[in-house]
Amino acid sequence: MSRKALDYDNINENVKKAQYAVRGELYLRASELQKEGKKIIFTNVGNPHALGQKPLTFPRQVVALCQAPFLLDDPNVGLIFPADAIAKAKLYLSYTSGGLGAYSDSRGLPGIRKEVADFIGRRDGYPSDPELIYLTDGASKGVMQILQTVIRGSGRDGILVPVPQYPLYSAAISLFGGSLVPYYLEESANWGLDITNLRQSVAQARSQGISVRAMVIINPGNPTGQCLSVDNLQEILRFCHQESLVLLGDEVYQQNVYQDERPFVSSRKVLLDMGGPISRELELISFHTVSKGFLGECGQRGGYFEMTNIPPQTVDEIYKVASISLSPNVPGQIFMGCMVSPPKPGDISYEQFLRESKGIMESLRKRAHMMTDGFNSCKNVVCNFTEGAMYSFPQIKLPPKAIEAAKRAGKVPDVFYCLKLLEATGISTVPGSGFGQKEGVFHLRTTILPAEEDMPAIMDSFKKFNDSFMGQYEDQTGYSRM
Amino acid sequence: MSRKALDYDNINENVKKAQYAVRGELYLRASELQKEGKKIIFTNVGNPHALGQKPLTFPRQVVALCQAPFLLDDPNVGLIFPADAIAKAKLYLSYTSGGLGAYSDSRGLPGIRKEVADFIGRRDGYPSDPELIYLTDGASKGVMQILQTVIRGSGRDGILVPVPQYPLYSAAISLFGGSLVPYYLEESANWGLDITNLRQSVAQARSQGISVRAMVIINPGNPTGQCLSVDNLQEILRFCHQESLVLLGDEVYQQNVYQDERPFVSSRKVLLDMGGPISRELELISFHTVSKGFLGECGQRGGYFEMTNIPPQTVDEIYKVASISLSPNVPGQIFMGCMVSPPKPGDISYEQFLRESKGIMESLRKRAHMMTDGFNSCKNVVCNFTEGAMYSFPQIKLPPKAIEAAKRAGKVPDVFYCLKLLEATGISTVPGSGFGQKEGVFHLRTTILPAEEDMPAIMDSFKKFNDSFMGQYEDQTGYSRM
Repeated sequence: MSRKALDYDNINENVKKAQYAVRGELYLRASELQKEGKKIIFTNVGNPHALGQKPLTFPRQVVALCQAPFLLDDPNVGLIFPADAIAKAKLYLSYTSGGLGAYSDSRGLPGIRKEVADFIGRRDGYPSDPELIYLTDGASKGVMQILQTVIRGSGRDGILVPVPQYPLYSAAISLFGGSLVPYYLEESANWGLDITNLRQSVAQARSQGISVRAMVIINPGNPTGQCLSVDNLQEILRFCHQESLVLLGDEVYQQNVYQDERPFVSSRKVLLDMGGPISRELELISFHTVSKGFLGECGQRGGYFEMTNIPPQTVDEIYKVASISLSPNVPGQIFMGCMVSPPKPGDISYEQFLRESKGIMESLRKRAHMMTDGFNSCKNVVCNFTEGAMYSFPQIKLPPKAIEAAKRAGKVPDVFYCLKLLEATGISTVPGSGFGQKEGVFHLRTTILPAEEDMPAIMDSFKKFNDSFMGQYEDQTGYSRM
Repeated sequence: MSRKALDYDNINENVKKAQYAVRGELYLRASELQKEGKKIIFTNVGNPHALGQKPLTFPRQVVALCQAPFLLDDPNVGLIFPADAIAKAKLYLSYTSGGLGAYSDSRGLPGIRKEVADFIGRRDGYPSDPELIYLTDGASKGVMQILQTVIRGSGRDGILVPVPQYPLYSAAISLFGGSLVPYYLEESANWGLDITNLRQSVAQARSQGISVRAMVIINPGNPTGQCLSVDNLQEILRFCHQESLVLLGDEVYQQNVYQDERPFVSSRKVLLDMGGPISRELELISFHTVSKGFLGECGQRGGYFEMTNIPPQTVDEIYKVASISLSPNVPGQIFMGCMVSPPKPGDISYEQFLRESKGIMESLRKRAHMMTDGFNSCKNVVCNFTEGAMYSFPQIKLPPKAIEAAKRAGKVPDVFYCLKLLEATGISTVPGSGFGQKEGVFHLRTTILPAEEDMPAIMDSFKKFNDSFMGQYEDQTGYSRM
């Protein structure tokens, strides 16, 4: 037996337990193939710019000027930057003490937190307090910080997570020594949430000695794409209130909605609309990001969380822990400012901003339809419409022979399918097992982000692979090399 | 008793235990006073730009262009950006798949990791492998990730940390449920490290049932400023090898050296120079950052760690955990590139880069002297010279009456002193107790970062306060209001 501290046998078991399929076996294989020269379409992660989405011009101009403040005194600056971007950069620099190169307060720049509060106030119709908004290096970091605060180790603290789920949750819960308590979304009801099922999950966890402490919702859903109705949100809030759970509202896809029947409504708005004791008592933390929506600025790592009804002493503890890593990156905070406080009608950059952002959202809507329709045209594939977020999550009905072939290859059946898809087409997806799913049911997740003009070819290539795969494993002549 | 999940009584005890004095009571009080309109000199944290240090022009030009790639096609771009910055921006954009708005690989952009490896190779005289270099959102995030991998919870895993120490270590160790095992630096020997004392610390920890797993060194020292000699580093490496400890080398101040007798030598170079089994067996992780040195780009959050002799399976686990938060911020990675691969002789921007960076380092050297001399001119204050890093850590010999007055005010004596200093002068320091120190000995930490031209006035103001404070509490007429 090895005895050095970082030998595999000796490291933290929770680190080993954590699984993160979005960059798991499929991603690693895709990276290898790419190195070997194969063209890979990375649809494993919601990373719009990597698939050709252009950044919005205005926020980039503002951040470029903040990075190069000496340009603000250059007589030629007006030749390449519009006046409103210059004014905004000056405003944001005035929020800092020393520009983008100085640590901000660990909660973020007060000026940006104020802009976020104003945005939330306009969105929900209830004022928001900047002191309860903390900026983060992307939403994931915020989620991880809050889970670390909630989970007391020992493996006995449970967090309710929708299944299928975004594996940030399963991974972080493992890492912090908690227990994931799954509640299943109903595929046949368009991934709706059934409150009876939720109660059963909690009862079952308790019978195993688990103390259920928090509930996660992802709205719009990742990987499932559904938008929660106000009725459903009310049920969830009442349930959390009865059970003294803190509700973690992952609302990073709030701008990504592709139908008009169920617009995004925040958990906070629904809570405050309910009034009465619940609206003053229920502990709620909501997350948002610059990585999704029309910005799609994943690489900048900007996010925030807002705390509702969290006791001040706990807010202070969360501040203290944020302080250990000093401050979220400041450029990411500027992007957050530009997202929540975009150009207004009459501003020089307004028309361009509107044209660019509308262009992105309209194209995403089209792509959501193209992808769903494409999947539903394939043999043994059924797919709910992507109402929101950035993903399609088709069910793949694998024939028994395919499942046997996977077993012989030592692979989980959906991993087997996705690997074959990758090798045949270069499309890098994530097997449904990475998100959790019911026994014997198989899915994959793909983003809807490939460029609109590439979409028909990608869906053709998928269909060709899939239908041949299905034909092969339904074929009575049995197993043959793909 | 409250029962909601985020009520203070119910949250993770390790979160409550973590202390981070750099943004503790003194910082909070300073922020309050600033809100009330008082002029505060924030010397609590090594944040050069917040105290007026100008960013280097070249890296900012490169990052501004990367943020606004549409400028690269603008016919006027040559009017305000030099050609080598434009070329560098194009190079760095070619490293990305989708510009700064796309997530990079979780370990950072391969192109930048290659540049870091080249830098390390030149520095140490031994090639470095980019696959063992992971980019991070600042060095603190890297340190936290590694501690989380090492510490197996249960409170029985010990980490050797120099005392006085940078409280990132104490805070993170608490947070992950480890035990800090202190080894004391010898103030009378210019904060040198005594290997006998180190052995005693380990023996004592073991007698308490603690499994010592890792050793931290901070070189140059924070808060103590010493530069470790090659002899001392060899002793440390041999000790870690004998005891099967992983060595965590916090080398973020490697560019900040203010004397010529002991230049910075990396732990890795000393290790590889030693040759033999130790050089192939000792587990070493070294940390670096863009926040210190002449860049001082704290707000950008760029850092890396390099792994030496870490087993591949563990390297993979560290990759997996990094993947959970998707990618370090990409602009911070570009700054890292500019730091390790600066303009070369003959480049258009070389002269300016040299002038700016030399100017900063020479001024820091002067300020290190001004501050040490200033402290040593004060009554009851003695201070070792700041050989490196960014801090002065003077010992404050508090008279018994001052200690009594602190007790009456319900304050730790050095907190009491620092609060009085803050109220009287606006100078925001960190009490020595935040870093750990021997019983009955008091210090404070201040950065050497105030602008050179402000330094005489600040040291005068400090001396006036200190000498009056000392006069008051040494005065036999006893306690009076400051």
